[in-house]
Amino acid sequence: MRVAGTSYRRHVEHSPLFSISSSSPMASSLLRNPTFSSPTTTITTPSLPSFSANSSPLSFLFPPSHHHRSLLRVKPLRLSCSISDPSPPLPPHSLRRSRRPEYIPNRISDPNYVRVFDTTLRDGEQSPGATLTSKEKLDIARQLAKLGVDVIEAGFPAASKDDFEAVKTIAETVGNSVDEEDGYVPVICGLSRCNKRDIETAWEAVKHAKRPRIHTFIATSDIHLEYKLKKSRDEVVEIAREMVRFARSLGCEDVEFSPEDAGRSEREFLYQILGEVIKAGATTLNIPDTVGITLPSEFGQLIADIKANTPGIENVIISTHCQNDLGLSTANTLSGAHSGARQVEVTINGIGERAGNASLEEVVMAIKCRGDHVLGGLYTGIDTRHIVMTSKMVEDYTGMHTQPHKAIVGANAFAHESGIHQDGMLKHKGTYEIICPEEIGLERSNDAGIVLGKLSGRHALKDRLIELGYELDDEQLSTIFWRFKSVAERKKRVTDADIIALISDEVFQPEALWKLIDIQITCGTLGLSTATVKLADADGKEHAACSMGAGPVDSAYKAIDLIVKEPATLLEYSMNAVTEGIDAIATTRVLIRGNNIYSTTNALTGEEVQRTFSGTGAGMDIVVSSVKAYVGALNKMLDFKDNSTTKVPSQNNNVPA
Amino acid sequence: MRVAGTSYRRHVEHSPLFSISSSSPMASSLLRNPTFSSPTTTITTPSLPSFSANSSPLSFLFPPSHHHRSLLRVKPLRLSCSISDPSPPLPPHSLRRSRRPEYIPNRISDPNYVRVFDTTLRDGEQSPGATLTSKEKLDIARQLAKLGVDVIEAGFPAASKDDFEAVKTIAETVGNSVDEEDGYVPVICGLSRCNKRDIETAWEAVKHAKRPRIHTFIATSDIHLEYKLKKSRDEVVEIAREMVRFARSLGCEDVEFSPEDAGRSEREFLYQILGEVIKAGATTLNIPDTVGITLPSEFGQLIADIKANTPGIENVIISTHCQNDLGLSTANTLSGAHSGARQVEVTINGIGERAGNASLEEVVMAIKCRGDHVLGGLYTGIDTRHIVMTSKMVEDYTGMHTQPHKAIVGANAFAHESGIHQDGMLKHKGTYEIICPEEIGLERSNDAGIVLGKLSGRHALKDRLIELGYELDDEQLSTIFWRFKSVAERKKRVTDADIIALISDEVFQPEALWKLIDIQITCGTLGLSTATVKLADADGKEHAACSMGAGPVDSAYKAIDLIVKEPATLLEYSMNAVTEGIDAIATTRVLIRGNNIYSTTNALTGEEVQRTFSGTGAGMDIVVSSVKAYVGALNKMLDFKDNSTTKVPSQNNNVPA
Repeated sequence: MRVAGTSYRRHVEHSPLFSISSSSPMASSLLRNPTFSSPTTTITTPSLPSFSANSSPLSFLFPPSHHHRSLLRVKPLRLSCSISDPSPPLPPHSLRRSRRPEYIPNRISDPNYVRVFDTTLRDGEQSPGATLTSKEKLDIARQLAKLGVDVIEAGFPAASKDDFEAVKTIAETVGNSVDEEDGYVPVICGLSRCNKRDIETAWEAVKHAKRPRIHTFIATSDIHLEYKLKKSRDEVVEIAREMVRFARSLGCEDVEFSPEDAGRSEREFLYQILGEVIKAGATTLNIPDTVGITLPSEFGQLIADIKANTPGIENVIISTHCQNDLGLSTANTLSGAHSGARQVEVTINGIGERAGNASLEEVVMAIKCRGDHVLGGLYTGIDTRHIVMTSKMVEDYTGMHTQPHKAIVGANAFAHESGIHQDGMLKHKGTYEIICPEEIGLERSNDAGIVLGKLSGRHALKDRLIELGYELDDEQLSTIFWRFKSVAERKKRVTDADIIALISDEVFQPEALWKLIDIQITCGTLGLSTATVKLADADGKEHAACSMGAGPVDSAYKAIDLIVKEPATLLEYSMNAVTEGIDAIATTRVLIRGNNIYSTTNALTGEEVQRTFSGTGAGMDIVVSSVKAYVGALNKMLDFKDNSTTKVPSQNNNVPA
Repeated sequence: MRVAGTSYRRHVEHSPLFSISSSSPMASSLLRNPTFSSPTTTITTPSLPSFSANSSPLSFLFPPSHHHRSLLRVKPLRLSCSISDPSPPLPPHSLRRSRRPEYIPNRISDPNYVRVFDTTLRDGEQSPGATLTSKEKLDIARQLAKLGVDVIEAGFPAASKDDFEAVKTIAETVGNSVDEEDGYVPVICGLSRCNKRDIETAWEAVKHAKRPRIHTFIATSDIHLEYKLKKSRDEVVEIAREMVRFARSLGCEDVEFSPEDAGRSEREFLYQILGEVIKAGATTLNIPDTVGITLPSEFGQLIADIKANTPGIENVIISTHCQNDLGLSTANTLSGAHSGARQVEVTINGIGERAGNASLEEVVMAIKCRGDHVLGGLYTGIDTRHIVMTSKMVEDYTGMHTQPHKAIVGANAFAHESGIHQDGMLKHKGTYEIICPEEIGLERSNDAGIVLGKLSGRHALKDRLIELGYELDDEQLSTIFWRFKSVAERKKRVTDADIIALISDEVFQPEALWKLIDIQITCGTLGLSTATVKLADADGKEHAACSMGAGPVDSAYKAIDLIVKEPATLLEYSMNAVTEGIDAIATTRVLIRGNNIYSTTNALTGEEVQRTFSGTGAGMDIVVSSVKAYVGALNKMLDFKDNSTTKVPSQNNNVPA
């Protein structure tokens, strides 16, 4: 990775891109202060990410505590919590963690504990356009560890060299960050098809984790056997048994097996193949409703039937993996857990191919709200206060935006975000809210308020950043301060959301091969749009070009193409204002596709898929932020190209060994 | 409504806003050709809206038939349908309609028929920012009738004069458009709180429909009684009984009653109040899970308990209304239907306050896919081929965008939209798809193709528009043709999506009080952004102003404010490219809030809520489309102001009579 050679001053003044080396040692992602404040304290620090000044790449640190101020101020507010959290005040964080039973691959000491297996980085990342860089994957893995997921499926290592490296890095870092208090460390899992090469590659990637797991799968429904695998049932049983045995033979003591399309597979065959892989050494059996076709009662029955009829099932954990094609994935997952599954496979925001997967936040909050009353006492080890932060990070990095009415994490999910008067809301809150926003790490909007104006100094900004959870070194602070002043001069009220957008713009960017120096544009209905763009390359050399176009963005992108000379197709372009007001900061996101060399292998279909790359930019000028986003996406693509030169060859699913 | 006095030529050349009088007589929204082509024909007309040249305001007409071409071309494709639609080839449309049992308010002759009650225009429209104009509501109501919903809840007439008028217009038009073949006409329903004034207002609004319904509600959970109503149980029973009786006394033979927050109400009290309102004349009993807290098994049990324990229940229809706070609304709705509910309350795209409601498309498609296998033969009267069009219309008008992984209607919901190779997709389609895209009116992307280029003439455009389902008169065609040529000169391939965006930009706009004439902008990183804007007022008089700003949009909006002089706050700003490529057309949407006079009453909380107004603009220049969107939103706000001068005073929920 190269850091541009331009002077720092220049960089501060003009460049939107901020280079962070990903080769430095990893910072610990442990909590800064694991003691959770009791509800009698009044602390207003919102739940936002921090990054440590001494660690590059950046790690998120969670703020020390949470604000229960509004909980205490108005009596009826307790009502809303009394439903979702009928227990007394939340115990300290460390105590909650200690409820998590000791990890043993094939059994759980507490029959009511449900393991949360997050596959955002594997199933979620395979969504069209959701491609993540290795650094982004690492950030998300760290955040998932903070959330307390039991298993992180970090990727499909055989898909490409880049995927392999990302899983390996996560295994080496996040997979070794053991919580000193309760010994928690997430299992790091790698997906593999049922062939030796995939399994070996997965093992090479995950084996350095403290708790490595291989997850292998093969389809078992007649339609998949006939049209995809072109194999008989006996052949499939043989492959599954051999490959599970092979995974164990490598030294992996934690092997998960999935009969793909289980929801449509013949029952007796399912019991047979599952019984065989148990004998071969599988420790978790995952039952996917691959096409999302079952209703909750059916899926619950499927799990119950497997539990009742599979020989040796008492020695393994049953898992659910529900697709959302009919909008039923959360309900199906809960139904599966109710019928005996003790691992649930989910993704943040429910992302995934087609209609996505069961979403972690819905499943976890449903168990938290109703586990005692309806699900016989089920519970998870998730620290729900990190849900909002994790959701926002996944949204930003994948570009898969949640709809305003997305349950739990949508912008409208809590009534206080709507136009309803705050007074009425506070008075009646328990009448329409079943979850306290604070419970998932969401601050009430009236706590956000106005923080800084153009007279605010460097110290005030630094203090506010620390309150927001960001720890910057002096150089980083200088960069942000300059941008902050530039915004404050033009915008009366600089809110927390503005500051966070600026931090994201400066910090959450890929390696900067190209940086924007200057741009000038003329456009409108009367003439041809014209853009002049000046970029600096990795060595700091400046290049300028001008172009006409159909509009300001089109002309600017064409000018950039003249400089960068890397063919790319713009697939998506979107922009959102982060705050209210005509002078708001807007965030732009673009998605581009390069030529064929940027390809990866789809785990399920075995097909080569062209990679796409996203870029984001923020600023008060929508044209400038659009240009930053495009340059960011090009940098991401060029970075991937550098890393992919030793790509692992793709394999056909039909060749099992 | 005034149409600007500028010359037509001027209008065609420069104005993005196209005036349509809403005072002309309504066009029939009946199907142009109700005969559904059998699957053996090969017709490629996609499922898109049409508007009739002779009708203003515009009505959507559905294209005559649907394309089953891909169904026939590749054999394995049948597989994907064989699951969701196990019956033989779809019967002709008229035959499907004839399956709908005759409408009798309090009973259904076929025990397996489930009524679909759409509340997009009432519950959905109350979502923050989803405010619809009367014309938009009418368009959606027409589309809902095409979809074949049994009941349209058209609004809450007591909320404001504007709401009242919208419901009345829908009752008079859509509520009287009887299908000649099968006698289908949707019930038009108005919501009212349990007080005489609300009920009278609702009746005045709906009574001209062929099948009018009043829907009244009062809360029954202890938490609501204590904190919201401040009433005893006996008082609430008395109010409910009296108000249902009052509604019947006005001549309304179709009265729906909802015990709000039924999910948290004490069972015995629920049986009691429901029994009383049945005696008082209620014909449908709706059971809302107002806070979305129940799990499917619980909600199903609630319906079963009500069915088993409420005196007189056999003489009424039980209905579900499930909020989505835990992501379980679809599953809860299905569970309710399985337990005996025969009406389901849903919204398009699942919009609504907080996490929204059960979504029509998920509930309907789950019943269609699994009704025979899992739900004992349940079915609905919905013509699913109109789902995509309805979803897009509601998305455009409300600005509530669905996430890419939204089930059924999300951009990624069908695998063929993703990066997976088309060949592989076609080969394996049945392996990962359970619904044919054609079944919900979605064409496969490889059918969309390239249609027109810059050499295409007026005739070619007209032909393509007709194929897309739009029937334009000569004047409208001239307008669109000019814009088409302007795009085609700058963009190699003009796709169907481009054309539809242009049509939306010209046609789906509010009354134009202000029109954009010209704009010129200079911006970039080197200097101050400056915009000069020229608008024409309703009398055609031109006004120009210039302003500096933080960016191009900020300066342009400030210049507009100098001309229009109507204070507004920009709440949301978003932009999306409608097609791939750097030269794509972008659609901008803004949401603004005016001052306090634009208020309405929230049905549930009884509070005054400030109205917000959305505007959209499309074009290849993002600054120009941003300006169009802002002018559109201002026009919508000014139009609402004109209509609201005789606003019905709001009422307190605590005053029942």
